[in-house]
Amino acid sequence: MVVAEISIIPLGEGPSVSKYVKNALKVFKKYDLKIEPSAMGTVLEGDLDEILEAFKEAHREVLSDTKRVVSSLKIDERIDKENTIKRKLNAIK
Amino acid sequence: MVVAEISIIPLGEGPSVSKYVKNALKVFKKYDLKIEPSAMGTVLEGDLDEILEAFKEAHREVLSDTKRVVSSLKIDERIDKENTIKRKLNAIK
Amino acid sequence: MVVAEISIIPLGEGPSVSKYVKNALKVFKKYDLKIEPSAMGTVLEGDLDEILEAFKEAHREVLSDTKRVVSSLKIDERIDKENTIKRKLNAIK
Amino acid sequence: MVVAEISIIPLGEGPSVSKYVKNALKVFKKYDLKIEPSAMGTVLEGDLDEILEAFKEAHREVLSDTKRVVSSLKIDERIDKENTIKRKLNAIK
Repeated sequence: MVVAEISIIPLGEGPSVSKYVKNALKVFKKYDLKIEPSAMGTVLEGDLDEILEAFKEAHREVLSDTKRVVSSLKIDERIDKENTIKRKLNAIK
Repeated sequence: MVVAEISIIPLGEGPSVSKYVKNALKVFKKYDLKIEPSAMGTVLEGDLDEILEAFKEAHREVLSDTKRVVSSLKIDERIDKENTIKRKLNAIK
Repeated sequence: MVVAEISIIPLGEGPSVSKYVKNALKVFKKYDLKIEPSAMGTVLEGDLDEILEAFKEAHREVLSDTKRVVSSLKIDERIDKENTIKRKLNAIK
Repeated sequence: MVVAEISIIPLGEGPSVSKYVKNALKVFKKYDLKIEPSAMGTVLEGDLDEILEAFKEAHREVLSDTKRVVSSLKIDERIDKENTIKRKLNAIK
């Protein structure tokens, strides 16, 4: 299992980009992923292929509405123990 | 007001790094910042100088326990409207 | 065309990680991508699908040698003008 | 010595942002830092306090011309050996 964070920034559409973030969140919901929106990105948990597909589709969805998009994906994968959002948050309590 | 995200990764201390993340969180609590831990980083809200100071102190705190640290800071600042964790999360609901 | 940056960090293998970065670079070279290593990551130019495949394969290659890997991908795509490493560097001269 | 990467993105000023990147580069040049522009950010080498000051000033310089700016800083610091752009690039050759 992979825990990931995605951030998608449309350039050139004014300072308010929540419309675009909502469209990206709609894309994420089509996938078999756990989704936790934060104020600086969206945290996701699931299979790596699902995450890469969701990243690509959300990026391209936002690009269909604007001329330039800068998107970031960070993935955290480990094989020595269970890797979930819940376990990671419990470990730092 | 600035909304920020910080991630601090110690290299070379084994795959489990929650001890270091807890030490960074202790540092953040000394500052006048709103703190929201996520599974992929810590979201912070406050004055830019406080955030930069907290970032530096937390990075150096982790570096005092290990040989190499890679730390990331992302800041989001806008002057056209209130910029808070709460408003950002409400805007994408 | 997409311009991207990839950074791959193995956790728990000591502070020196150049061996792993070299393995990731070997993976990138199998793809039809322009590659520019920097001191903080690798800048890549090419088709988005190639970049996503290369990111996944390089991440998994490093994970085959260690227990935990944190990898980052940032992509910059625009449809209003040619998007290449060369044009981006020329634009800021 | 710290090796860092900075990326500054103005939102709402159209897809072309090279004017803003040039202003940020002018700010970096005022500091005692080694500067290597890449297609996805600027790599810097120097003292951590200089880097934090340069990051803040460049971010605020860009914000003086637009309504919203998202800026990223990644720092890599190690105490076991010399940490420079040159050594890092040589290590992966």
